[in-house]
Amino acid sequence: MTRNDGPQKVDIVTRVLAANDRIALENRKRFAADSVMVIDIMGSPGSGKTSLLEATIPRLKETSGTGVIVGDIATARDAWRIALQGVPAIQIVTENFGGACHLEAGTVAEAYGKLDASAIDLLFIENVGNLVCPAEFDLGQDARVVVLSVTEGEDKPLKYPLAFHEADLVLISKCDLVPYLDIDMDSLLENVCEVNPRVDKMVLSAKSGQGMDDWMAWLAARMKMSGKMTS
Amino acid sequence: MTRNDGPQKVDIVTRVLAANDRIALENRKRFAADSVMVIDIMGSPGSGKTSLLEATIPRLKETSGTGVIVGDIATARDAWRIALQGVPAIQIVTENFGGACHLEAGTVAEAYGKLDASAIDLLFIENVGNLVCPAEFDLGQDARVVVLSVTEGEDKPLKYPLAFHEADLVLISKCDLVPYLDIDMDSLLENVCEVNPRVDKMVLSAKSGQGMDDWMAWLAARMKMSGKMTS
Repeated sequence: MTRNDGPQKVDIVTRVLAANDRIALENRKRFAADSVMVIDIMGSPGSGKTSLLEATIPRLKETSGTGVIVGDIATARDAWRIALQGVPAIQIVTENFGGACHLEAGTVAEAYGKLDASAIDLLFIENVGNLVCPAEFDLGQDARVVVLSVTEGEDKPLKYPLAFHEADLVLISKCDLVPYLDIDMDSLLENVCEVNPRVDKMVLSAKSGQGMDDWMAWLAARMKMSGKMTS
Repeated sequence: MTRNDGPQKVDIVTRVLAANDRIALENRKRFAADSVMVIDIMGSPGSGKTSLLEATIPRLKETSGTGVIVGDIATARDAWRIALQGVPAIQIVTENFGGACHLEAGTVAEAYGKLDASAIDLLFIENVGNLVCPAEFDLGQDARVVVLSVTEGEDKPLKYPLAFHEADLVLISKCDLVPYLDIDMDSLLENVCEVNPRVDKMVLSAKSGQGMDDWMAWLAARMKMSGKMTS
């Protein structure tokens, strides 16, 4: 989204966001009526959102019916990767909507309609890889997770504050790479706190499995809190 | 930028882009009149754009007057990092323009006015960390460089095609990390070619110095080609 093009553009942007928020509210009611907990996952391209889901889904098989909606500008590669895990996955290709750099509540509503909600307790929405624009658009989710790779550097929460401000959980991913990087993990976590003092934080690696138990426990606690737990 | 909100929104977006293109054309003329070659550097958050410039600027000291315009949503951290190299650096903080997710020709024109063009042969514009939106906005540059970190994965050119399609050079960065990743470099380079068969490609590491000579040679060749070489 851009807002620096004079009053008329600002009006339009405000109207687009207001229209989105109305649909997001409808989504939220629909998800509640269906007892589906919805997690919106945001992060830069290559931060590890799909790899996180690939590592997460097998661990949920015993306890939850999982579904995934994936947003990408082009290709259905991520939905194919997810579908290999044996769960329903719907790809939204935003190129069909002019190359939108984020998901909106309306496209999510349409994708959700293609899923069998009765078989789903937990729906992940993997947003378009973009640390900026998705944070502006409420999708009706129960919680927002920002995935930030250790390779992106410790200053990113300060430089891209909105996504971190909107997050309920910040997952610092790819921590298996820390020994090969010049990253100050304390400083990274302090920067997250500076932008959002109350946000939950975890350090994990989908590859090594480190931190995955904490993530699963966080999901279970959120499911319980939302009253949408089926088992 | 979003375009999926009906005809009125599309109209506005089209007008914004057309207005931007007019200013970009003026920028291009101004850069030519000043004999300044301008390189727009795009890439995801944490792809290594600032580190690349930190490694590049000292190597240019003998041959070129260098200047940098840096775009970020928040903080002036990157301009400080660049200024430590002893070259003029202007930070554009897009938060002041509603948090814009990209640079536009108008803000670049304003920043350029703060530089002493007579001391500059080569101007780098470090765009906002975003692999999506910056590619839509011509800034009046001579060439566009996309920096893609090896940590982002081999599928990114296919998933974010516009930036790669618009690029004159794709720099695959952080290649010192390849031994610790499951990345297929051949497949990555093939995917770049699939989106943009004629684009120049290089693999480098600002940290180890690998590939930096090729990048410097590319810059020198572009300077020569543009007729903007002073030495």
